[in-house]
Amino acid sequence: MKTPLQPSPKNPPNGLNFVLVIIGDEILNGRTRDLNIQSTALFCRERGINLKGVHIVRDSVHEMHQILKIALEEADVVMTSGGIGPTQDDLTKSVLANYFHKAITPSKDVELIVREQYGRFNREWTPTLNFYHHFPEDFFPINNPQGLAPGLGYHFLNPQGNPQLIMSGPGVPRELKAMLDLEIFSIIQKYFPTRLSNHRDVTIRTHSIPEEKIFGEIAPDLWAKLEHFGKVASLPHTMGVDIVVSLSPSKLECEDELKSIVSQSPLAPYVWSYEKKELPELIHNLALSDHLTLGTVESCTGGLVASKLTDRPGISAVYRGSLVTYSNELKSSLCEVSKEILENFGAVSMECVKAMAVGGSHKLSSDVTVAISGILGPDGGTPQKPVGLVYIGVYNKKLDQFTGHQHQVPGDRQRKKDRVSDLALLALWRSMAQLKNPQ
Amino acid sequence: MKTPLQPSPKNPPNGLNFVLVIIGDEILNGRTRDLNIQSTALFCRERGINLKGVHIVRDSVHEMHQILKIALEEADVVMTSGGIGPTQDDLTKSVLANYFHKAITPSKDVELIVREQYGRFNREWTPTLNFYHHFPEDFFPINNPQGLAPGLGYHFLNPQGNPQLIMSGPGVPRELKAMLDLEIFSIIQKYFPTRLSNHRDVTIRTHSIPEEKIFGEIAPDLWAKLEHFGKVASLPHTMGVDIVVSLSPSKLECEDELKSIVSQSPLAPYVWSYEKKELPELIHNLALSDHLTLGTVESCTGGLVASKLTDRPGISAVYRGSLVTYSNELKSSLCEVSKEILENFGAVSMECVKAMAVGGSHKLSSDVTVAISGILGPDGGTPQKPVGLVYIGVYNKKLDQFTGHQHQVPGDRQRKKDRVSDLALLALWRSMAQLKNPQ
Repeated sequence: MKTPLQPSPKNPPNGLNFVLVIIGDEILNGRTRDLNIQSTALFCRERGINLKGVHIVRDSVHEMHQILKIALEEADVVMTSGGIGPTQDDLTKSVLANYFHKAITPSKDVELIVREQYGRFNREWTPTLNFYHHFPEDFFPINNPQGLAPGLGYHFLNPQGNPQLIMSGPGVPRELKAMLDLEIFSIIQKYFPTRLSNHRDVTIRTHSIPEEKIFGEIAPDLWAKLEHFGKVASLPHTMGVDIVVSLSPSKLECEDELKSIVSQSPLAPYVWSYEKKELPELIHNLALSDHLTLGTVESCTGGLVASKLTDRPGISAVYRGSLVTYSNELKSSLCEVSKEILENFGAVSMECVKAMAVGGSHKLSSDVTVAISGILGPDGGTPQKPVGLVYIGVYNKKLDQFTGHQHQVPGDRQRKKDRVSDLALLALWRSMAQLKNPQ
Repeated sequence: MKTPLQPSPKNPPNGLNFVLVIIGDEILNGRTRDLNIQSTALFCRERGINLKGVHIVRDSVHEMHQILKIALEEADVVMTSGGIGPTQDDLTKSVLANYFHKAITPSKDVELIVREQYGRFNREWTPTLNFYHHFPEDFFPINNPQGLAPGLGYHFLNPQGNPQLIMSGPGVPRELKAMLDLEIFSIIQKYFPTRLSNHRDVTIRTHSIPEEKIFGEIAPDLWAKLEHFGKVASLPHTMGVDIVVSLSPSKLECEDELKSIVSQSPLAPYVWSYEKKELPELIHNLALSDHLTLGTVESCTGGLVASKLTDRPGISAVYRGSLVTYSNELKSSLCEVSKEILENFGAVSMECVKAMAVGGSHKLSSDVTVAISGILGPDGGTPQKPVGLVYIGVYNKKLDQFTGHQHQVPGDRQRKKDRVSDLALLALWRSMAQLKNPQ
């Protein structure tokens, strides 16, 4: 009698394996930075699909053939990106047809989709424009919600008798992301209905403490408690750690129970959100609902806080602007920091960020104003004020209240700037939220 | 008699094929955005090495084994990144030892390198700290200039009798980049001295015209003329196109001849540099040498121009700061834009950016001051002032001169912001350069 096969924990028998193949000379030439890997990885993670690997290959028939073979041996679902456009180096369709021994012929079904896609951009498609309507037999077209070239897919049984699915989408990151979110998942659901489990993540966002400290010192038993609810992952970010619990099927309704375990644990003071939203969005929404205007006064972050806020469309309704007072003279002339403060305490001091925040609030007519000053280096540090020392302060005009924090920030200059600007956004948001729940 | 093998143009017999294997659960989980692909791609491109492909694989012994086999069949040189640290999920060393049937033993040579690496960070290494000094037989250690864990390499003849090289480096992008630049290339040169040709790129940086227009309309014969000097590539960037010519071995001394062909072509007015340097660096250097102080006044770029400038260490010597006047009131109160201008022409107008630049120069005490105002959308456009309309103006106090340009910028909000901020830096730099060569 044979021993039944034990599933390996890395590769559960019901899990769905997915491989991404990027067809992209421009990536391998260094010309373009890839943006499709992370969006595909997040697409898979959020839907409980196992992204087993990624391959990047040149726009060459021979190399595409080889990598298709490898990918189809690895995964249930293979997705390619790139090479579905109209020019002669767009090889994906012909390589796939050739790989599966299918003839390419004009298709009325595909023509309909192509006409519709062009119509969305107020453009007319005619069969002389390109060969988008020529399609490999037995393949199905995939709507490209943000683009013109349709994707293509093929579902088949492999020589072992197992179902497999291959799909090809665009290389443009915005187009691929829209196709993944709006089309690809429902196709996967259709062909592998029993291989996808209901999936829900709970995200616990913490700040200002490293991973080791959370699970080593502050809350040593928390990981085990969370594992009771599902698979736990700890994802470090610029200014903290997100703890993500992928709820097990039997625990899908236990989100509140999980949250109350965390909020009663010693980690609670470091948790700033149970939502996956980013700070600029939280800030924007809260400012709109509470009719608050916002301002920023930046020294060492040099405009990055302002830039992160203004990445959001519509922020101008609540965000007044920023004084980037990179030089000391501007700290005095623009936001009324007194000579005494600069001489007695220096530009990198709690006194200075307080004066910057209060003065900035006046100049910018903003209700809640965050000010940042620090030394990002690599030069300019002293034994008293080392590189990485940063002060962040918020003046809340509605409460006539100033709150400030001192930080010592690690990392190279760019990472420090990124981290400090996120800490400043967090400080801004917390001060805004205080108007709701004064402590 | 056999026909002699014809080398395929894609794969010249003397070219050196390189494959990158990224070992990274954190990339496949979507937790981290990969930064190693582009730096490896640029490393290869700049040295005439053919990056044939990239594979990303999970931290799993079985899957690493499989991908090593695939990579070693594809390339002369295989580089892995990640998994060389001290924790138990750092598997690279043991997987490689196992793959090549080598025992892992303590090595005195490696110990020396490890001690030196720790010494650089003022830390002491002892053999009880980790197993960095345990090394597969016949492997050589590779110095990790920015980190603590040494890399490893192995050179061997494959079953076909051809030399192959496999090397493993760190996953941290900063560490991998330093290792590539300072160590890896000289190792490749040592083992494949005849496979690398002298390599030099000439970069021609253009702005404000798309690829098709350069080679279709403006200078239709330029591509052919440049191909006379070597391989030509056209690399689009945020605000223009870089044309890169990789000089053929016989043309390594013809750089000036090539440049003069371009500078006498109809493309000349669109060329802004023959250097590969980025604008913040060019601006910084010119401001230092000419003793100029700089300022920015930003509306739609919302601090991004300031942030790009302040990414550079030491810029505070020349850069005064930025007024991010996101609201109209601030345009008046902070940089003296008159009510009449805002009422008669609106905030998105040449008149307004002129007033912003002149007023900003006064407030910031800056010699050269760039001002930006536009509509980045997705909302806020009108038939007269559509989304994408942007004005960029520079006031040069030394010449008492204002220069302004109107742009219509494509792309989504983020891309527009990026593109407009680069156009603003270009305008700033050109105005600074005018002090040297007034036109």
